[in-house]
Formats: sequence, C-alpha cells, structure tokens
Amino acid sequence: MLLKLFAPVLHSFRVGVQRMTHVFARSTSSLPSQAIMHSEHGDPNSVLYLENSQMPRTVQDTEVLVKMIMAPINPSDINMVEGTYHMLPRLPAVCGNEGVGEVVEVGGRVSSLRPGDWVIPADTGFGTWRNFAVSDQTLLRKVPNDVPAISAATIMVNPCTAYRMLKDFVCLHEGDCVIQNGANSAVGQAVIQLAKEWGYQTINVVRNRPDLDQLTEYLKSLGATHVVTEEFSRSHQMKDLVSSMKSPPKLAFNTVGGDSATNILKRLDNKGVMVTYGGMSKKSIAVPTGALIFKRARLTGYWNAKWVQENKENPELVRMFDDLFDLVRECKLLPPASETFSLSDFQHAVKTSLEGFKGSKKIFLMDEYP
Amino acid sequence: MLLKLFAPVLHSFRVGVQRMTHVFARSTSSLPSQAIMHSEHGDPNSVLYLENSQMPRTVQDTEVLVKMIMAPINPSDINMVEGTYHMLPRLPAVCGNEGVGEVVEVGGRVSSLRPGDWVIPADTGFGTWRNFAVSDQTLLRKVPNDVPAISAATIMVNPCTAYRMLKDFVCLHEGDCVIQNGANSAVGQAVIQLAKEWGYQTINVVRNRPDLDQLTEYLKSLGATHVVTEEFSRSHQMKDLVSSMKSPPKLAFNTVGGDSATNILKRLDNKGVMVTYGGMSKKSIAVPTGALIFKRARLTGYWNAKWVQENKENPELVRMFDDLFDLVRECKLLPPASETFSLSDFQHAVKTSLEGFKGSKKIFLMDEYP
Repeated sequence: MLLKLFAPVLHSFRVGVQRMTHVFARSTSSLPSQAIMHSEHGDPNSVLYLENSQMPRTVQDTEVLVKMIMAPINPSDINMVEGTYHMLPRLPAVCGNEGVGEVVEVGGRVSSLRPGDWVIPADTGFGTWRNFAVSDQTLLRKVPNDVPAISAATIMVNPCTAYRMLKDFVCLHEGDCVIQNGANSAVGQAVIQLAKEWGYQTINVVRNRPDLDQLTEYLKSLGATHVVTEEFSRSHQMKDLVSSMKSPPKLAFNTVGGDSATNILKRLDNKGVMVTYGGMSKKSIAVPTGALIFKRARLTGYWNAKWVQENKENPELVRMFDDLFDLVRECKLLPPASETFSLSDFQHAVKTSLEGFKGSKKIFLMDEYP
Repeated sequence: MLLKLFAPVLHSFRVGVQRMTHVFARSTSSLPSQAIMHSEHGDPNSVLYLENSQMPRTVQDTEVLVKMIMAPINPSDINMVEGTYHMLPRLPAVCGNEGVGEVVEVGGRVSSLRPGDWVIPADTGFGTWRNFAVSDQTLLRKVPNDVPAISAATIMVNPCTAYRMLKDFVCLHEGDCVIQNGANSAVGQAVIQLAKEWGYQTINVVRNRPDLDQLTEYLKSLGATHVVTEEFSRSHQMKDLVSSMKSPPKLAFNTVGGDSATNILKRLDNKGVMVTYGGMSKKSIAVPTGALIFKRARLTGYWNAKWVQENKENPELVRMFDDLFDLVRECKLLPPASETFSLSDFQHAVKTSLEGFKGSKKIFLMDEYP
C-alpha cells in the first residue's frame, strides 16, 4: 500500500511545486480569489454572486491553502442555495460541496498533507466553487493525484452513493440482480459499472427518448445487463425478462419516485429492498400494502452527505475510496460526461444546470488549470 | 417451568376426561362431525357450506382427536375463502386458521399430548371451523388450559402480531413512544396492552365516530397514553402533542394505508420504522421521498402467518406464548370483545363479519361447549 501510493505522491509534489510557482509569480503577498457565493436563500439565478478579493497567501498552524481545480454542480448544491436542502450553511456562504483541489501551502503543524497533494472536502458544506480556499487540515481528505482530476472532483457524491447502496443494504452474490430507475443518472452509471465489476446483473430503467438506442448502447458499454424504458418495465414482457434472470432483483435503487418507483418495487424478489436516494419526479412513492406484508419488501433511503458525515473516522470510508480510485485507474469507473465552465461564467453554468440534470454534468474548471 | 405447567395440566386432564365421557356417551364408534367448508374460491356468502358427517373416533399412531372449542373469524380467513390471500389451502378445505380445541383421544405414539390438553394449530391452514378434527400431533401446539378459552382461541394471530411488531423492528426502551393507526383493532388493542406492560407510550389514531369518547375511555383503560382522531393527527395540535412526548415515535404500526399511513409516517422520529400489517382502506401508502432520505425512515411489513410458519422450532415462539399467557392470567391482556355463533349459524356469522371487522370479533363456539 505504501509503495503503491509513493510514486503518485512524489509526482504530485513536483506538479504542486510547479503550479505553486506559477500562482505565486503573480503576487508574493496575496492571491486573486474568486468565489461563487450567496447571502440569502432563493432562486440560484438571482441570489448567486461572484466575490472577487485578495487572499493572503500565508497559512497558520494546522491550516492548508488549497487551489481548487474542479468542482461540479450537483442537484444538492442547487437545493442548498434554494434553502430546500436538509443541511444548510451559515450565510453568506461559498457554494458547492464537492470538488478537488491541490495543496499549495501548509501551516507549520500540518503533518498529513504536503504541497502538491490533491484533496477533496471531508464533509458537506466546504464551499468548493472558488479558486482558493484556506481550510483546517481536518476538513480535507487526501486523494490520489494520479487519476483524472474530474474523477477526483466527482468521486465523493455519485460513486460513493452507488458503492454504499450496493454494499450496505443487501448481501449480494455473484449473478444476483439489481434493478434501478433513472439508470442514466451519474449514480446510475456508477451503479452499472460497480455492479459489472462485482458480478451483479443490472436491469436499468430509463425514460423513452429520441436517442434511446444510443443511450442503451452507451449504458451497455458500461456493463448494463438490460436497459429498458419505463413503458417496457410496466409491460408483460418485463415479467418475462425478470423471469429470464437467475432470480428476481434483490435490490432496487429509486431516484425517480412516483409510478416509476412503484414499478421497480413490484419487480423485487421476496424480501427485497428498495433504496431511495432521489426524487426527480417530485412525486411520492405509492407503496401497495401487499408489497410490504406478503412480498416482505423493505423500503429505506440513502443520504450520502449524512453517510459521509457520520463515517469520517470509519476505516470503511478509506477502503471505499481505495476501491473506487483503483477502479478509476483501471478505467472501470469512468468520470461522468461533463461540460466545463469558468467561475466567471457561473450564471450560464447554473442556468444550464437548472434546465435539468441531464446529459452532461456541469463542472467549474478553475482558471490556471486549463 | 415444569412446576408452573404441572397444575394446569392436571386440571385440564380432569376436565378433558369429563368432556370425553360426555362426547362419547352419544356414540362409541363415531362422532357427529360438522365443518364449514368450501370447494371453490369466491364470495363467502355463496361458496361456504356446512358438511355433516360421522367421524370415526379411533386415532392412529401419532394422530390426535381434537374437539374444537372456539374459533374466530379473522379477515385472513375470509380472504382465503375469496382466494385473495397469499396462502391458499387445497380445495375442498375446512375454513378457519385459528382456534382452540381439547384433546380427547391420542394415538399410541403420541407422547407430548394427553386427553384434556388444550391445543391450537401450529400453523396456518389447519381448518378450525369444525367441531372435531383428527390431526397429526406435529400440527398442534399445546397451550395452557387455565386461561379463558377465548384468549387461547385468539392468541395466535392478534396478540402474536402485536408482540412481534413491538419486539422485532426497533429496540425500544422504557418511555419510548409508538404510534399506530386503526388503534381500536384487535391488534391495536393488544399493542396498547403490551406497550403499557413494557413501559412504552402509545399515540393511538382512530377514525372519528359518534361514540368516540367511549372508545377513547376504553382504550385508555387498556393503557393507551393518547387517543386521537385521524383529523387531529393531521393538525398542528398533533405536532404539539408529539413535542410533549419524551421523543417522537420510534415505531409506527400501520393497518390502514392511504393518507392515514402517510400521516403516522410523518410523525416518526428520525430513523424510525413503520411496520405495515394490514391495509383496511385498500389504498396504497404514499411515501414522500424526503421521509426515506432525510428522515431516514424505514418501511417494512409484518406477516404473522409467515412468521409463525418460519419460527415453529424457534425457542422465541415458546417464550412469546409463555409471556402472552402470563399476561392473560394477570388480566393484562384481555380477550377481544366478541360475539359468538354456532357452526350451524355460519351464514349469519360470516355475513356479519363481511360487514366490517369492527367492534366485536365473531367467534364460532362449538356445541357442547356452552
């Protein structure tokens, strides 16, 4: 393990020094800092603003100066701005909860991080939509820097959700089947890839669309066993498809709600579990009484931000990141399709996000990291 | 334990011999047997018939001749006749799944039962709506005969459901709170009494009705902490009531479905569990996504017939019956309010049951056991 990490650390150290030099060439005493902020909750098209300031480049004791590289726009970031999320920051706040940065300076009492290391927030609420951050070392988690920055920037929310949902609710064995709706979401794609790697079959339900064939082909290229439309999943053919599997799905992942959720619930094996992690349709899940009593299905939810918060010290978290980054290196866990924006183009980025979290993920790519 | 059971066994043996004599006085070679049967599934008002026959009084090897004393009409009995239940007997079948009988004759290889013992079916599907049954000893479970027959006849479904739901889903501590709808049902009343005995608070939701005050008083006499109407439970006052408890309910029992279920789900504490054991409204449960993700509520079901089937050899089952019968003896678990019918009056009994499982439980009281 030590050996495995050693080379990347050396490498990143060098990269870090180079970039530090580059950054510091502009000013020896302060850094041109940019951050997307909000001082009140409301429509993200209205309440967000870009704050320009100068940040002192000195850090104290256990502090770390981080140059952010990339930070995605996730649905929960938007909900936090709107004030509808169940974890809200003190205002004014820098937006964004996920992303990767590079350590450029560490305080005298920082032992676990060195310039050049890559870090991600250890918890929700970090504020990642900025180019520089000074943070206590305890709020950062070191990640390998021999992987694509976009993978590191997006590992904490979607792949982590997929990983935990596959691990924590049902004991699956090779050949077992998982069904999910919203299968083309970022989590859905991570589920497909992890399930493929671990030998599980997947039935992936997506909405019908003009480019269905292309999407189906893409999800199958990731490892999907079956890709079906919502309409198909309600048909008799779906029954045949489920019958053709080794056994009906033991686990269902729901990010849609409404009829779509009820439908995948119905396809579950006896004693199966449906894990809800999103509600894109904004509709409740109609649960037939018989599914709970006679089929003995269980319904539960997964809240990634809470899991991360409650498991900071859990060795399982370290194991998970190791597993996920190994898969990233082996190209078995691909980064999401993405579209990048500069911080100064935040209004466009957010507006595009609000049009629906479809297709590509919107990601802030900080300047000086082209 | 041996000592505890010894006296009742002796007592029942004597009672049994007397009754055997009484029964056998009518015929030395055969018994006048009556059974409510059906040969097809359908409307219980149409498909049921009374079968009169003569039953040989001899039993073989491991067989036991049982004279049934009492057998209730439960909703699931009706559903089995209709063919809508998830366990169906081979037809033609004797109806009824619960009840108590007295052993009158045992085969030469029966060691665990003696004439005079009281027995209940060990599993669903026994066919209890008859006055005599010959059964293998393995299909019977001995119960104490120093309790009211009606308590023994109705112990297996409702009190068992209440007991398991309070024990198997959440680890409750004294002072913890449970919320339930349909609180005046037979299970609901058992929940109230067991919760009272074990030191749990209960919030009991019932439908509004003309005699609400009387019902409230009755449920409180059983040990209910609070009795509220469906309307109240949706109001702001309900929020205040929940706030006045030590903590919000950790456990909810749902036998109604629809809005009523959604409402008690909303009152659950974080990480609370809602157990569904019935669906009287015949409506699905609308589960808000946020309840699963942010409140981290879990939904599950309880199917008593299945639990009993799967736990025949589980020492926990013996412990449960011991606990329940102890509470019966101490008058801490009362038998349900009831209305008795003779087997020959089955059409009236079933018709009354079909009008709704409200108020009193309809129970067949076999002739010769006035």
